[in-house]
Amino acid sequence: MANTEGRYFGRKRKFWTWGYEGDDIPQTEVDSMCKRVAERLGVPGFELLSDPKLDEIELRAPRITPPASLAHFCTTDKWDRVVHTYGKGFKDMVQIYRRSYDNPPDVIAYPRNEDEIRAVIDWCGENGYAAIPFGGGSSVVGGFFAPGDDYDGAVVIDLGNMNQVLEVDDVSRCARIQAGILGPALENALKPQGLTLRHIPQSWEFSSLGGWIATRSAGHYATMLTHIDESVQSLRVVTPTGTLENRRLPASGAGPDPDRAFIGSEGAYGIITEAWMRLQGRVKFRANASIAFKDFYTGADAVRQITQSALFPANCRYLDERDALFYGAGDGTESVLLLGFESSDHPMDAWLDRGIEICKDYGGVVRQKSGTGTDALETSRSGAQGSWRSQFRYLPYLMHIRAAMGIVSFTFETAYTWDKFKSVDAELMRRMTEALKRIAGGGIICRRFSFLYPDGPSPYYSIMAPSTHERSLEDYQAISDVASAALVELGATVTHHHAVGRTFKPWYEKEIDPIYGRMLTATKKELDPSWIMNPGLLVDRPKGLKITS
Amino acid sequence: MANTEGRYFGRKRKFWTWGYEGDDIPQTEVDSMCKRVAERLGVPGFELLSDPKLDEIELRAPRITPPASLAHFCTTDKWDRVVHTYGKGFKDMVQIYRRSYDNPPDVIAYPRNEDEIRAVIDWCGENGYAAIPFGGGSSVVGGFFAPGDDYDGAVVIDLGNMNQVLEVDDVSRCARIQAGILGPALENALKPQGLTLRHIPQSWEFSSLGGWIATRSAGHYATMLTHIDESVQSLRVVTPTGTLENRRLPASGAGPDPDRAFIGSEGAYGIITEAWMRLQGRVKFRANASIAFKDFYTGADAVRQITQSALFPANCRYLDERDALFYGAGDGTESVLLLGFESSDHPMDAWLDRGIEICKDYGGVVRQKSGTGTDALETSRSGAQGSWRSQFRYLPYLMHIRAAMGIVSFTFETAYTWDKFKSVDAELMRRMTEALKRIAGGGIICRRFSFLYPDGPSPYYSIMAPSTHERSLEDYQAISDVASAALVELGATVTHHHAVGRTFKPWYEKEIDPIYGRMLTATKKELDPSWIMNPGLLVDRPKGLKITS
Repeated sequence: MANTEGRYFGRKRKFWTWGYEGDDIPQTEVDSMCKRVAERLGVPGFELLSDPKLDEIELRAPRITPPASLAHFCTTDKWDRVVHTYGKGFKDMVQIYRRSYDNPPDVIAYPRNEDEIRAVIDWCGENGYAAIPFGGGSSVVGGFFAPGDDYDGAVVIDLGNMNQVLEVDDVSRCARIQAGILGPALENALKPQGLTLRHIPQSWEFSSLGGWIATRSAGHYATMLTHIDESVQSLRVVTPTGTLENRRLPASGAGPDPDRAFIGSEGAYGIITEAWMRLQGRVKFRANASIAFKDFYTGADAVRQITQSALFPANCRYLDERDALFYGAGDGTESVLLLGFESSDHPMDAWLDRGIEICKDYGGVVRQKSGTGTDALETSRSGAQGSWRSQFRYLPYLMHIRAAMGIVSFTFETAYTWDKFKSVDAELMRRMTEALKRIAGGGIICRRFSFLYPDGPSPYYSIMAPSTHERSLEDYQAISDVASAALVELGATVTHHHAVGRTFKPWYEKEIDPIYGRMLTATKKELDPSWIMNPGLLVDRPKGLKITS
Repeated sequence: MANTEGRYFGRKRKFWTWGYEGDDIPQTEVDSMCKRVAERLGVPGFELLSDPKLDEIELRAPRITPPASLAHFCTTDKWDRVVHTYGKGFKDMVQIYRRSYDNPPDVIAYPRNEDEIRAVIDWCGENGYAAIPFGGGSSVVGGFFAPGDDYDGAVVIDLGNMNQVLEVDDVSRCARIQAGILGPALENALKPQGLTLRHIPQSWEFSSLGGWIATRSAGHYATMLTHIDESVQSLRVVTPTGTLENRRLPASGAGPDPDRAFIGSEGAYGIITEAWMRLQGRVKFRANASIAFKDFYTGADAVRQITQSALFPANCRYLDERDALFYGAGDGTESVLLLGFESSDHPMDAWLDRGIEICKDYGGVVRQKSGTGTDALETSRSGAQGSWRSQFRYLPYLMHIRAAMGIVSFTFETAYTWDKFKSVDAELMRRMTEALKRIAGGGIICRRFSFLYPDGPSPYYSIMAPSTHERSLEDYQAISDVASAALVELGATVTHHHAVGRTFKPWYEKEIDPIYGRMLTATKKELDPSWIMNPGLLVDRPKGLKITS
């Protein structure tokens, strides 16, 4: 029912994993991946579970039926309900391979405009059904799960039909864009104007503008414009109590920022329907280098100085020796910094030269370099940088294979201040190593910096551990909980850019001040008095609050 | 009672205007200013009102007495109550010259710690007295006025004793700082560490960290780090329902940003007591130029391209021909751009060269230039830049003289998108010119860009018009209202960095979406159920809400 012309280029998505139908991973690639992972985990091999088929999945009958006035854009078809049951994280994939669809949504709505969104939300509000916004479905934290028995029905509202760039202001370099648009269609629409949002999270192909905003996504820029937050000029949001439109302003000092109140609200206040977004000129100049460090912490000092130099590299991914090996960006003996500058206006050689100078002060060795006079775009797609880039983009396509192996495989990311970087990182590594050994008998931790700030890095940890088909979900949960508990205890954040969802909700409650939790609850009550919007996200329903209005 | 050692360097502030006692403006300077203003307004001259003396001011007796437990840090002395009645805007100054102190606060509290703040707030809450936070007292928008008869008493809580830098983290380049510290003491404390907040609004000498945060102040950086918002790492806030402390994080994607909810809350939610602030390395490299344009709008196009180039100049003040003349930065026939780059890390010549290249493409003529190999610091303090800089810093010292003249003199600033810059600016100029003629028989409008964003400028307008001692306040209000109404109607913001206060409150209500107003009200009710915190600011008390708890 979603307008696949505008959204999916006329193709059909797989109902259970990343990518389009027909885009299958070649068996040779699956085999070589299994071999590689088995070697790294020191296990003999894997018995892969078979990919799920739609007719293997049993769904309970829909508990509710949309009224005639909504029926033309709602469906209870099995395919649609299955697609909207799970996200794309490790946990989701394990459940999918288990064919475990105990709590699917009942109805999927594909509204074409705000009136239809309001009509669905009203229907849910009148009957006490959960109304669950859905962008691209790429959540890895349980961002759109149907709630349990508290609600008599669950309606997923898929923004797939609201997928257009509505207006481009090329003087202010902004565009008014519908929330349901996915990364590729968004960039295609802006390209003829010489503009780009340049927000490219790993989920870019199958995540939506509205989802990025609701979850405070981060992507592409390693410094400065890291999160989507800074690129939001103004929002329109349909809430159960009315439709809000903030004023389009480059900046203001009038009261607390009205857009920030919704950025990161994870659908709990209402549905972001469109946004005026700040854009960038398309990149004309590039200057890149890859720089090797013998010691992870020494290189981290160089990276810190770069982030405090106001050079603002677009790329500043710093991979430890294991991560560099994994991404084909190093030989496993050195940490590797992928340092890149880009501009729509001027050559960036002076910027890169200073960045390299800093690295050399810390013993960094330049392995590759390009800038004016070289084909920096080409270089960014070859060598260490190219390897990293293509692996990064391709990874979501392989996630399900890891779940099919019966191992544990997940990532977590955080942010904390530089003063405690080494001690927190060392303690995290200690606890995770211990947890992997205790729970799984071993495993691997890779780490990198994915985003950087003058006052601290956003370290990203990738975990892989042996397990079994029976135990992998429980092992994952136990290992993941060690990480989350450590982050909260050590003064870090439970998530830099994967959102809270249901996965991190118990930890988020410990991260924020209880008074702030009460502020969120007060806001939620005001906007969503029947507590129907994405229940279970952001804040818990106060005990005794009636669901129906 | 305030600890003047730490805050005012052992000196005593004037009770009615900018500066310290003993720092008087030389009569020759007053005379020459009067002559200059009279010439510009085309009037023969002024009969200056005499400066107010404390014994000329009549105050009603305090309506309330602090309980014994609070008495040791509270006062009802006349001097203290007078100081805390008015801010430093034009309207304040006119009232002060009229010796019109109809509604002074009853008690001034000078807490030394959070416990004392909590005790005062509790006392106010129990009795339904207004609790009014006070930082440096530099508000120009009525940011801390005692409310009217709705409240049985008004207590100003002056943060003057909480004026210390408590902790410096020179690895992450941050400091934990008490909210009551003023600009000079703050920078003095950071200097030995080689660090600086580099937040320098025009009010810098007599405005406080807490005030900057509560009002979303902007200062120094023309691009990127314009508002204080981006420099706040985490806040502590004492609210009537408890003390909140946000986590110290460089960034997070977990829920809506908890600091942003308080930044710009203007004391209506509680009192910001301290903040971890992000700092900068001290400037070691400078590159500056002043560039003249024949036509304001053509130069504005150059400025727009610079702001969209990601060069991020620290200074990018663009003055129209009248503003340039006024600040001694031009001869009155040309618009002048003061373009400056600075760095703690590397020479900025490449940055400046590219900025100048852009200006030349738009017909800009370089009048002055300095960078590596020249004394750029010296240059920034001489010529057009030096003139602008010293005038800018000195201006608050002269404000009261304008009020004493019996003229109308005020400024307003806004921000809106580039696509409508010329049409909105032209319409504003048309309406203001008409209003000046109709209300005051004439007057002058100067304009400049003070802060800039890729998607729009923050234009700043200075107004001066002939009036009389009897009429100046009413003329000011009428002219100011024409400006505010135009901003709201034309899609701009009513304030870029002077806060809403009481002055712009009626216009702010039109600027924001009513649903956002309800969100602010819900938050206020949750934090301040007795509605005692800075009443009249941010949101109105809902009808029927009891004041006492």
